Amino acid sequence: MPEKIRKVGVLTSGGDSPGMNAAIRSVVRTCAYHNTECIGIYRGYQGMIEGDFKEMGPRSVNNIVNKGGTILKSARSLEFKTPEGRKKAYDNLVKAGIDALVVIGGDGTFTGGLVFNNEYDFPIMGIPGTIDNDIFGTSHTLGYDTALNTVVEVIDKIRDTASSHNRLFFVEVMGRDAGHIALNAGIGAGAEEILIPEEDLGLDRLLDSLKKSKASGKSSSIVVIAEGDKIGKNVFELKDYVEANLPEYDVRVSVLGHMQRGGSPSCFDRVLASRLGVKAVESLLEGSSNFMVGLQSDAVILTPLEQAIKGKSEIDRELLRVSDIMST
Amino acid sequence: MPEKIRKVGVLTSGGDSPGMNAAIRSVVRTCAYHNTECIGIYRGYQGMIEGDFKEMGPRSVNNIVNKGGTILKSARSLEFKTPEGRKKAYDNLVKAGIDALVVIGGDGTFTGGLVFNNEYDFPIMGIPGTIDNDIFGTSHTLGYDTALNTVVEVIDKIRDTASSHNRLFFVEVMGRDAGHIALNAGIGAGAEEILIPEEDLGLDRLLDSLKKSKASGKSSSIVVIAEGDKIGKNVFELKDYVEANLPEYDVRVSVLGHMQRGGSPSCFDRVLASRLGVKAVESLLEGSSNFMVGLQSDAVILTPLEQAIKGKSEIDRELLRVSDIMST
Amino acid sequence: MPEKIRKVGVLTSGGDSPGMNAAIRSVVRTCAYHNTECIGIYRGYQGMIEGDFKEMGPRSVNNIVNKGGTILKSARSLEFKTPEGRKKAYDNLVKAGIDALVVIGGDGTFTGGLVFNNEYDFPIMGIPGTIDNDIFGTSHTLGYDTALNTVVEVIDKIRDTASSHNRLFFVEVMGRDAGHIALNAGIGAGAEEILIPEEDLGLDRLLDSLKKSKASGKSSSIVVIAEGDKIGKNVFELKDYVEANLPEYDVRVSVLGHMQRGGSPSCFDRVLASRLGVKAVESLLEGSSNFMVGLQSDAVILTPLEQAIKGKSEIDRELLRVSDIMST
Amino acid sequence: MPEKIRKVGVLTSGGDSPGMNAAIRSVVRTCAYHNTECIGIYRGYQGMIEGDFKEMGPRSVNNIVNKGGTILKSARSLEFKTPEGRKKAYDNLVKAGIDALVVIGGDGTFTGGLVFNNEYDFPIMGIPGTIDNDIFGTSHTLGYDTALNTVVEVIDKIRDTASSHNRLFFVEVMGRDAGHIALNAGIGAGAEEILIPEEDLGLDRLLDSLKKSKASGKSSSIVVIAEGDKIGKNVFELKDYVEANLPEYDVRVSVLGHMQRGGSPSCFDRVLASRLGVKAVESLLEGSSNFMVGLQSDAVILTPLEQAIKGKSEIDRELLRVSDIMST
Repeated sequence: MPEKIRKVGVLTSGGDSPGMNAAIRSVVRTCAYHNTECIGIYRGYQGMIEGDFKEMGPRSVNNIVNKGGTILKSARSLEFKTPEGRKKAYDNLVKAGIDALVVIGGDGTFTGGLVFNNEYDFPIMGIPGTIDNDIFGTSHTLGYDTALNTVVEVIDKIRDTASSHNRLFFVEVMGRDAGHIALNAGIGAGAEEILIPEEDLGLDRLLDSLKKSKASGKSSSIVVIAEGDKIGKNVFELKDYVEANLPEYDVRVSVLGHMQRGGSPSCFDRVLASRLGVKAVESLLEGSSNFMVGLQSDAVILTPLEQAIKGKSEIDRELLRVSDIMST
Repeated sequence: MPEKIRKVGVLTSGGDSPGMNAAIRSVVRTCAYHNTECIGIYRGYQGMIEGDFKEMGPRSVNNIVNKGGTILKSARSLEFKTPEGRKKAYDNLVKAGIDALVVIGGDGTFTGGLVFNNEYDFPIMGIPGTIDNDIFGTSHTLGYDTALNTVVEVIDKIRDTASSHNRLFFVEVMGRDAGHIALNAGIGAGAEEILIPEEDLGLDRLLDSLKKSKASGKSSSIVVIAEGDKIGKNVFELKDYVEANLPEYDVRVSVLGHMQRGGSPSCFDRVLASRLGVKAVESLLEGSSNFMVGLQSDAVILTPLEQAIKGKSEIDRELLRVSDIMST
Repeated sequence: MPEKIRKVGVLTSGGDSPGMNAAIRSVVRTCAYHNTECIGIYRGYQGMIEGDFKEMGPRSVNNIVNKGGTILKSARSLEFKTPEGRKKAYDNLVKAGIDALVVIGGDGTFTGGLVFNNEYDFPIMGIPGTIDNDIFGTSHTLGYDTALNTVVEVIDKIRDTASSHNRLFFVEVMGRDAGHIALNAGIGAGAEEILIPEEDLGLDRLLDSLKKSKASGKSSSIVVIAEGDKIGKNVFELKDYVEANLPEYDVRVSVLGHMQRGGSPSCFDRVLASRLGVKAVESLLEGSSNFMVGLQSDAVILTPLEQAIKGKSEIDRELLRVSDIMST
Repeated sequence: MPEKIRKVGVLTSGGDSPGMNAAIRSVVRTCAYHNTECIGIYRGYQGMIEGDFKEMGPRSVNNIVNKGGTILKSARSLEFKTPEGRKKAYDNLVKAGIDALVVIGGDGTFTGGLVFNNEYDFPIMGIPGTIDNDIFGTSHTLGYDTALNTVVEVIDKIRDTASSHNRLFFVEVMGRDAGHIALNAGIGAGAEEILIPEEDLGLDRLLDSLKKSKASGKSSSIVVIAEGDKIGKNVFELKDYVEANLPEYDVRVSVLGHMQRGGSPSCFDRVLASRLGVKAVESLLEGSSNFMVGLQSDAVILTPLEQAIKGKSEIDRELLRVSDIMST
């Protein structure tokens, strides 16, 4: 570990999420505020290996707080998984005089950072940036709040059509391992039923719920389904199954896909990004390493990277009950 | 034909589109303005057959000018395709004292209206409501402008991700027979290439264009594809084809689907709906029948329903050239 | 206090805020879920005095989760401040068989409820609905998150003009006594400086900050100012003062005003409303009274109404420092 | 006039408007398409005087089609109104090898261009960019459609509050000399009454209309007022006048201001900008000069700059009648 941090590198890695640019801006300006140099590293760990660096001052990050995506770009790097790749990356950092790293991304990003730190004792601080909210140690990841708003706005539009035609819609949202988006956006969008990876509600329950819904006088329904739901059928198979068992329903499917990752960040994500960036840089300057900065009970808290990677971000099971009551 | 129109019925039929509610509001208030009664007919022609009617006064349509969908609901009616069905519908209209109809929808809606008029000499006026803009006799159908904005907003989000990851996206938009949405939203969203039903650009041209794009230094690209494009492959087959032929590309697919039909109408669609509703009712009151009201050169014009149905709404081929230049 | 709650009344009072409808929906459906009747009371306490009541079942609140404003309307009631007014209100509740109340609003709403409870021992539960976030006992009031998004979206638009013309904008946002909106939306919108009621930064500091900003190469700046800021000048006087002292600046003023109260609620506000409504009704059914339901550390918690009224919702002063660093 | 255009300069001047960036992009790429060089001139005519130029290729305008404002910045130039200023500007153009100009802006921009052309016989082509739609020779100016959407979205939010509180709102929108925004956004937003510069409706009519509105059972109303309305009172005086004469009304005022100029352009404005840019450059290359490109009956048409400046863009008076009927 260096005596004193003089130059901080920052990168984004993995799937992009709204708020990453606001976090980059915060890292860059916090460095400037503390008279510390800052280097942007393009395309994540791959750019570290290729030495794709650029000096960044406070004016380099003008007018990006409200932009989706990441100006530093993101990429997957197979090479960084090899000792040779990491050696090249380390050499580049040393050559550029970088003596600490802020890595913005998800589990994979943190794992890469931790391995690198173990080999080279290089100071690392993680910022959780992913729409899935599946990181332990923070109540909210960057981009999650924005993604929820994107999803409810789209389902609001779909509902216009659903209720004009008295139809049932299955809407697939992101979340291979985590039901946060489906559960919260489902409640927000007034979904009849929500299917998530954490819980196998069973096909019978879905059919019962839809039957009950029809009987209660509802003219249209939305079912929100996480990509990784436990029900054992993909969304198109599910449509076929429901239509076979409930012929009174004419099911339409909408797979929201990548649009969920983009868009201008919500105010919440911009403020969160600003706070996390300040804490990440200041923690490095104070000599901390191998932590993720996160939000817990509205306070910014450090969690050891190892815990952040191994832990599981649990859904709030009380929300399942709220969803149940709301679809009365 | 009645001596004087005393009571006008209004219905929406076919796929819903933003602006239908604004048009219903305009029809209802124009009737009130001219001291003519107005009856809302639910669920299109099917509701006519079932007598699903409701009196509507100016206050029945408060606060709907900005709502997507249709408060009168829409439905397909197989029964209305039979003489028996139409007989029931006619009897219901007579019983309710309705002596003229405004029908809001697309080709199918107008065809139903024309058949009905031929049998019963019942005054009919059509308002073009569909997002596809595929109706002859109007430069814009209700909902088309809103759908274009929805599509470019979604592609803007997708572009955030595309350009963060240097990826190629294929985005499928509505338009089985008409490329209006693909062509205009494609230009608006800065698409690299646009595939439409009216033109077979050929697979070679697509590959060439993508190669050229890569060579010109573009880091990411969007291709916008109408559902009914002529290229002879669906969007997923197209992805496979491109990846097989251009291994440097990692293609992602996004099918926008039903969200394109919903949402709060744009100002343009609200004003257009208001104008068309006034003209539809006033034309009926003046004794006209069997016309569609539409926009031509910014003026509201009548087109015989028969022409509206038979004619074809041509795309502006100059836009293909503009698109080509824009993707330089 | 009644033996058992059989019928719950619900009202909204004070300034409206996004999420009030989602909260009404939650109260109504939670009652239905627990086989309890629910009565909507129109126009707040004034409607209670006038007996402006309506039975509400689960289908009465279809399709309102995403609507701004309040379907139950809101009003100020001078009459409810008199014992005679409250007597009339009580008599109406008794006559209607209502034996508990959920009141949605801010400080004034809760004070009215508490006085009423003291006189008639009538079970009351409060839900904090106001965009200002100035209620003790909850980290977020209903509508606050939505208002933040509205403000940053508008300032994003203003910034387009500011940066095209190299201009300085003063943007006044809501908050007579609380700087929550100004502080968070200011950080979210990348404001150069933020003026709030809680802190007198002084005019010199503002001038210094603007001088520094010019010197640092920024071409345009936004200053966000809460209505009730401590600096002792209104926003137009402030413009004159700055232009007199910094002639290099051409200041434009924008007062955002009432638009901040409206709009479709964010996903966060919809989920919060759903959770608070469930807790409010279930707490009443369990025999609690005189509490406000609120959010603390992501959990729904009861706070005595008296504390909610007397306590002060503090801003997070760390955010002042974050804002400072962000405007480097 | 040069034998052949080899290098085109492009600038934006006057108030910025959404779509200016899309027009810059179109000019730059159309030049590239025709193997013509393109130079961006910063800060309008002032930058021409100061030689603030930058070469632009197709990649210089990546990802700006959807951005509000203008990347070339805008400014007022008093110096360009003097022969000395224009001499400097001309010398800079000659030195840079620029032999034609595309100027994007409004009346003032075109007047500057025309004077310059008269003195130096320098080829000029104008693109109408202003939200006010007050340019003769085009049915739509760049940014107008976007501004209409911005205004109706904001009034939709205000209406949430208006109808929750049964209040009357006066909303002031842009338009010193032209009522296009007020008239169209007023109809789109369902305004009770619309006050514009082109027509003096009289104070009595306003009071009558508001009385009638109350009597007809409307619980809330919006009046949309153009900045330059003819009624002879500013919006705050008007509030006082109405409250003095109609004490049953509690009037709130909202001045929308600069936010109307910003924001991501609508699809319509993006496509229009793309079309106008192509036509402007190709017309110059074909030897035309001193024209404005504009939209007429959905076709792109040239209008002599002199006519564009002297002519008046008339409002569609039929819309006044539509507005009247809609507020039944």
